[in-house]
Amino acid sequence: MRAVDLIRHKRDGAPLDRAGIGAFVTGATDGSWPDYQLAALLMAIVLRGMTADETSELLAAMLDSGTRLDLGAHASRGVDKHSTGGVGAKLSLVAAPLAAACGAVVAMMSGRGLGHTGGTLDKLEAIPGFRTRLSLPEIAAVLDRVGCVLVGQTDEMAPADRRLYALRDVTGTVESIPLIAASILSKKLAEGIGGLVLDVKVGRGAFMKTEADARTLARTLVDLAERHGVRTRALLTRMDAPLGRAVGNSHEVIEAIETLKSRGPADVEELSVRLATAMVELAGLAPDPPAAEARVRAALATGAGLETFRAIIAAQGGDAGVIDDYGRLPVAALQEPCRAGRQGVVAWLDAEQVGRAAVALGAGRATVDEVIDPGAGIEVLAPVGTPVVAGEPVLLLIAGDHARLAAARDLLAGAIVITDAAPASTSIVIDTVTGT
Amino acid sequence: MRAVDLIRHKRDGAPLDRAGIGAFVTGATDGSWPDYQLAALLMAIVLRGMTADETSELLAAMLDSGTRLDLGAHASRGVDKHSTGGVGAKLSLVAAPLAAACGAVVAMMSGRGLGHTGGTLDKLEAIPGFRTRLSLPEIAAVLDRVGCVLVGQTDEMAPADRRLYALRDVTGTVESIPLIAASILSKKLAEGIGGLVLDVKVGRGAFMKTEADARTLARTLVDLAERHGVRTRALLTRMDAPLGRAVGNSHEVIEAIETLKSRGPADVEELSVRLATAMVELAGLAPDPPAAEARVRAALATGAGLETFRAIIAAQGGDAGVIDDYGRLPVAALQEPCRAGRQGVVAWLDAEQVGRAAVALGAGRATVDEVIDPGAGIEVLAPVGTPVVAGEPVLLLIAGDHARLAAARDLLAGAIVITDAAPASTSIVIDTVTGT
Repeated sequence: MRAVDLIRHKRDGAPLDRAGIGAFVTGATDGSWPDYQLAALLMAIVLRGMTADETSELLAAMLDSGTRLDLGAHASRGVDKHSTGGVGAKLSLVAAPLAAACGAVVAMMSGRGLGHTGGTLDKLEAIPGFRTRLSLPEIAAVLDRVGCVLVGQTDEMAPADRRLYALRDVTGTVESIPLIAASILSKKLAEGIGGLVLDVKVGRGAFMKTEADARTLARTLVDLAERHGVRTRALLTRMDAPLGRAVGNSHEVIEAIETLKSRGPADVEELSVRLATAMVELAGLAPDPPAAEARVRAALATGAGLETFRAIIAAQGGDAGVIDDYGRLPVAALQEPCRAGRQGVVAWLDAEQVGRAAVALGAGRATVDEVIDPGAGIEVLAPVGTPVVAGEPVLLLIAGDHARLAAARDLLAGAIVITDAAPASTSIVIDTVTGT
Repeated sequence: MRAVDLIRHKRDGAPLDRAGIGAFVTGATDGSWPDYQLAALLMAIVLRGMTADETSELLAAMLDSGTRLDLGAHASRGVDKHSTGGVGAKLSLVAAPLAAACGAVVAMMSGRGLGHTGGTLDKLEAIPGFRTRLSLPEIAAVLDRVGCVLVGQTDEMAPADRRLYALRDVTGTVESIPLIAASILSKKLAEGIGGLVLDVKVGRGAFMKTEADARTLARTLVDLAERHGVRTRALLTRMDAPLGRAVGNSHEVIEAIETLKSRGPADVEELSVRLATAMVELAGLAPDPPAAEARVRAALATGAGLETFRAIIAAQGGDAGVIDDYGRLPVAALQEPCRAGRQGVVAWLDAEQVGRAAVALGAGRATVDEVIDPGAGIEVLAPVGTPVVAGEPVLLLIAGDHARLAAARDLLAGAIVITDAAPASTSIVIDTVTGT
């Protein structure tokens, strides 16, 4: 079938078969389909949907468009985690070293900040010298030595996704659960892993605003990955307020190290341990969940996780001295507090607005080509549940120039909600979705 | 709003306002929107639809994208007709001269063959020397002299439609009544006319296969054109079998001239008179429909219509001698009959397959750049309702080489349906749709 006939087929609500989906993905990879035909089919998919079979064929074709990592002898212990994006979510920097310290093999390929959410690569690059772009042989060497590597996608992996992802961003075709699921898993399954833990965030600061949407995405991801032979578990987690107290790259690296030293905020420690526990379990390193959790907590208490993180930094060319001396990390020069407008208890800090303010301060990018300031960010001085008096600082804005401070200040009007009564305390993990 | 925000807005089912539609059409005209964003929005429009207000704004913006013809002193009598495309439908070549002979001013801008249907420009260009590409001053001069000009669109008129039309063809976004209606009327209303007659074809050989779809298109076109100040009437007409007996460019010119000499097939004469009558009426040249029809029939009987066609040919550089000597028109060298498979009555000739066979013979284009053979075509020897014996010729295929004859023969397998009983006779005009 010609491209236009495939587009018409999907436009009219009929499912595409393997050959049709293969032609689409090949067309995206080798450039034989022009952007306008890809865009038309993507919009038809957004509005007509895809069956589970179609989504599975899409994932298979996207995986086949590039190279898959071969973990060799490590394959059975190969696991990874993926988060759908949040604010202050430095979880990979804690969970990956903890899981690796327990014997899991973690070849984690992450992304950069997107919209108001932060990205693992941007955080790691705040560490002087840290290289996130390694060749396939370099990745294999770090894995052999440390059991964990934290890098960006290589050009060889899932090239179809790179073209489609860029196009979706500018054609209003991001919001489709089949397209989101195939995109995430085409990158993760290319790592050659046997197990995958998903952190599907839901709430005002997440891409999925409702629990129903987040559950649908989690269910789609779990079923699709299991169908492709990967043991998978998804945690539905809250993303209403920023996670922990630090937002921004250097600041989040410091908080991740503090967490690995057992001195981190309770929510960051709790969620990191939950994610690492699931990774250890899926890697087959513990007979049951309590045993997996015990191993992870031991790796935290003994500092084994911290030492793994130190080894990762050193193996990837970074200054491992940052572990003991935070002064080696860049911090922007200017600070300005954001104060409580009244007396009461902090009931809510709008994660999306805090994320946007962090981008405005320089911690993220408004356009793809923008250079970020690793030392910019926001410190949460009074997290949700804290009693405050009028005029007391709630957030501390950190940036390199006054214009950025002013832009962030404007974005934060209304982001701090203070009430008379303390908010009901909620658990960070809402539910777990497993294979059926 | 940025392009991507407008796309998302329509994708989510919300109507676009004047500013949004203006941005889209300007983006298509000046190239500031890339093809992939236009394609994504077109697909969202196909699947989400457009309200009458949106379609009206779309038409207004498309008209504003280019020049509108100024008929000056002729404006009040300026009318045109448009057909939605058929097989053997040489109606413009008959109705336009007849209406002009009655005093209407017809600045008809037509198109080329599309898919299995023929195009007025291709037919006219079968006449040696006939120029269909005139400048705006040349168009005005022919109108002043003859009262009728038959040309192609100029570059200045409706440029937005040219880009969108080409893109829709390759992105599966043709089939949308709002997009079809705005496209047709953006070209027709740019002629500066006060009245418009639409020939909306329905049936197996038309783009609209069902009467319901054709009615919806007719209603949309009439309401939209009236809203833009043009008196409009649509005839719903049957297009199951080819119209008349000639298909192919030279052959249709001859049949049109024969019709203007009152010797044409009954269906061609009947529909041409109906269309010309509506044009004369909308031009305000008769007090009521019977008076308009009497004027048209007189123009036919006296040969005034024929003389107007002769004058048009001469004014546009063509060899007007073709009116009296059909030998001056090119006819391809090879002929082959397509015979009846059994005895009975011809019950149906599949217009779409006959149209495809004519394209295969060289009368139309499979790709945009193909050169057509004006002398190729099909003659209907035994029209619907004719009794035949087995082996009797039903169609005569005419082409320049044997390979084309063979290709057409293959396409016509099953296109001739012969039954025992004669088919019920049907009227060619199903209904008339007027402004509300």
